[in-house]
Amino acid sequence: MTSPLRIALAGLGTVGSGVIRLVNENGAMIAQRAGRPIEIVAVTARDRNRDRGVDLSAYRWVDDMNDLATDPEVDCVVEMIGGSDGPAYNLTRNSLLHGKSVVTANKAMIAHHGMELAGLAEDQNIALKYEAAVAGGIPVIKGLRDGASANRIERVYGILNGTCNYILTTMEQHGTDFEAVLKDAQELGYAEADPSFDIDGVDAAHKLAILAALSFGTAVNFDAVDVAGIRNIMAADIGQAKALGYRIRLLGMARLDGGKLFQRVNPYLVPENHPLAHIDGSTNAVVAEGNFSGRLMFQGAGAGDGPTASAVVADLIDIARGDSGTVFSMPAGEMTCSEPAESGNRTGKSYIRFIVADKPGVLAEITAAMRDADVSIESLIQTQKTAEGSVLISMVTHQSLERDVVASLDKLSDSSSLQGAPVVMHLLSDQD
Amino acid sequence: MTSPLRIALAGLGTVGSGVIRLVNENGAMIAQRAGRPIEIVAVTARDRNRDRGVDLSAYRWVDDMNDLATDPEVDCVVEMIGGSDGPAYNLTRNSLLHGKSVVTANKAMIAHHGMELAGLAEDQNIALKYEAAVAGGIPVIKGLRDGASANRIERVYGILNGTCNYILTTMEQHGTDFEAVLKDAQELGYAEADPSFDIDGVDAAHKLAILAALSFGTAVNFDAVDVAGIRNIMAADIGQAKALGYRIRLLGMARLDGGKLFQRVNPYLVPENHPLAHIDGSTNAVVAEGNFSGRLMFQGAGAGDGPTASAVVADLIDIARGDSGTVFSMPAGEMTCSEPAESGNRTGKSYIRFIVADKPGVLAEITAAMRDADVSIESLIQTQKTAEGSVLISMVTHQSLERDVVASLDKLSDSSSLQGAPVVMHLLSDQD
Repeated sequence: MTSPLRIALAGLGTVGSGVIRLVNENGAMIAQRAGRPIEIVAVTARDRNRDRGVDLSAYRWVDDMNDLATDPEVDCVVEMIGGSDGPAYNLTRNSLLHGKSVVTANKAMIAHHGMELAGLAEDQNIALKYEAAVAGGIPVIKGLRDGASANRIERVYGILNGTCNYILTTMEQHGTDFEAVLKDAQELGYAEADPSFDIDGVDAAHKLAILAALSFGTAVNFDAVDVAGIRNIMAADIGQAKALGYRIRLLGMARLDGGKLFQRVNPYLVPENHPLAHIDGSTNAVVAEGNFSGRLMFQGAGAGDGPTASAVVADLIDIARGDSGTVFSMPAGEMTCSEPAESGNRTGKSYIRFIVADKPGVLAEITAAMRDADVSIESLIQTQKTAEGSVLISMVTHQSLERDVVASLDKLSDSSSLQGAPVVMHLLSDQD
Repeated sequence: MTSPLRIALAGLGTVGSGVIRLVNENGAMIAQRAGRPIEIVAVTARDRNRDRGVDLSAYRWVDDMNDLATDPEVDCVVEMIGGSDGPAYNLTRNSLLHGKSVVTANKAMIAHHGMELAGLAEDQNIALKYEAAVAGGIPVIKGLRDGASANRIERVYGILNGTCNYILTTMEQHGTDFEAVLKDAQELGYAEADPSFDIDGVDAAHKLAILAALSFGTAVNFDAVDVAGIRNIMAADIGQAKALGYRIRLLGMARLDGGKLFQRVNPYLVPENHPLAHIDGSTNAVVAEGNFSGRLMFQGAGAGDGPTASAVVADLIDIARGDSGTVFSMPAGEMTCSEPAESGNRTGKSYIRFIVADKPGVLAEITAAMRDADVSIESLIQTQKTAEGSVLISMVTHQSLERDVVASLDKLSDSSSLQGAPVVMHLLSDQD
């Protein structure tokens, strides 16, 4: 057996503890698969004295994590600190500059600095790996980079945030409204005390930007993702969607159209016969449609210490086996900077829901605004009274330009009849 | 750009033609991803003059495929001839012996000769790859070997034959009986003129034996797979299963229990809330349950020239990138020869269906035999008359030892009341 791959863990939260448990429990098998042992030699975190439920006594404690970048006894740094900038970024950058491979679970850092860091790694012919950054334990980075590598990917999309999917599917099963389910999810530990990163779609957008870069060979462009979350979805919306044969899921969706990159995180109405309609609870799933493979789907746990550690250690096994290929599917220097696609040019059906005052003429006002913007209504699903005495109006448009839908709602923005902004969701189709 | 990977294609059926189309259509992108071009330099097949719908004029035609093994202008041989032995095996073996990497789509050859061929490849530090051999375009070999590599796999199972899944789900949707659907499937080209290889479970068993070896580090042992197909399933069985909240799917199922390897291909009753229950038509899906990742599922097209070519060329890209690691998850020489597990020791619920003569006392005879073998009946779902005037009796057992179920049916084997052998299917649970 050849010399071990010596790793240092930076950050000892739940993922870090999971990696320690995994390496201890599966170590002998990992050595067989990797061709050499993977050995934790050093650890670092903010607070040395916190009880983490794992025994750290076998590992050298490093007070200043920056020392890891130059530590002669460390081959590979595992960054589990989190945050797009600051300590995580500095440690990753310095480690790569000093010729150490890095494995990270940090989606924000890759979404913001992936191109620069990939360039550094490739210049030195070392590895930067981030399987755990997208969809937790599901090996979707390897699935796209290696498994689907022969294909031009037509589009990549999926359920990228387990918290949102848990909330939406719980609302679906129990007919409960968003706020109540969120509160339960927080008590159960499925949602953070400050849940905005998840429920406003930012976390999914980080992951989507990474998937798009891998799939299309375009430079990571997180700032160009068009993001909306799930705060405004009501149990009534889910019921209406169901009556139409759809389930509501927060999707990340990316496609390259005529050289322009379309990236959106948004709740979609997913047809019941689409595999994503059956992804419930905190499960994640990623769909990639290749020009030869057809539709591939990868599903599994999108978070949790075990699944995330599984992804981190799979990256370490790759490195131990000697894989130090490109960080994305192709060299970072050859990835193109694509112009963002104009979402207004897209065509599709939309679900629109209004809350309006219960008074005569409101429906006429809404339908006139839509007619004037060239948006034609396929079905007005239902109007129903809310507990507060307002009226809820839901409709589905015919195939329309998205810009026309926006224009129709703009016309109504000053209307005294509308109570709050309307909610718009796209019906998932092969054109998305 | 470095020197091309020079490949020779042996066998120019639909998969071979698909590989040519793929390399032509996606060639520039493949060169970027692989770091070098993949170039078809030579082709061979039985009949030079057959019209294959692809232009072969750019490639050197080789009359005797055995010459490829020593051809100095070929780096890698792509074997798409088929058959476990004979020309495919000879070409693969000779190519490896002469230091050429081999990519194959041949599940039968890997199921029968995988260990020997893997040893040859590893001795020479060259690649033998077979992503296309299991589940067509789904990158499940890479998913297990690389994606789930940090996990002890608890069990691996899935829908491994698209023809059977197409037939079963068509029976489910239309209530049609097996023979009629098979005939339609043959006319549509979804089933072979001689369909036995698919519908009797042999094809799925080849794939299962490969997945088990990858997952558990056990030597490939196709002969130990316990195989049954779908010939005896009636539309009535599917209806009964549905009434119980199950769908019938032909599954391959493997697990390592106390060092013993359990491998079975059998129709199972899959609970409606299990992701495999939603895999319809000719789609394939593989589930791997890891001790840290939890349940992972990979789904996509299990056959067809495009998906299969996608898997073949992904292997070629791996080779062009320099990956020549182990053939399975660990070195072939370290894989263990595990004793087959005794299926009689397994416990679970079973669905049993009898066709019996319509006369008094039959039910008493059956239930007495089951009582005497310690098999207790959870529910007798229904008895109904067939068109031929016989009676169909379906039941589900309580948790029972499989050996007891077999014993109960043995007691009935001489009964003049039974018309044909009973059909037994297991109810999929976490214990399987």
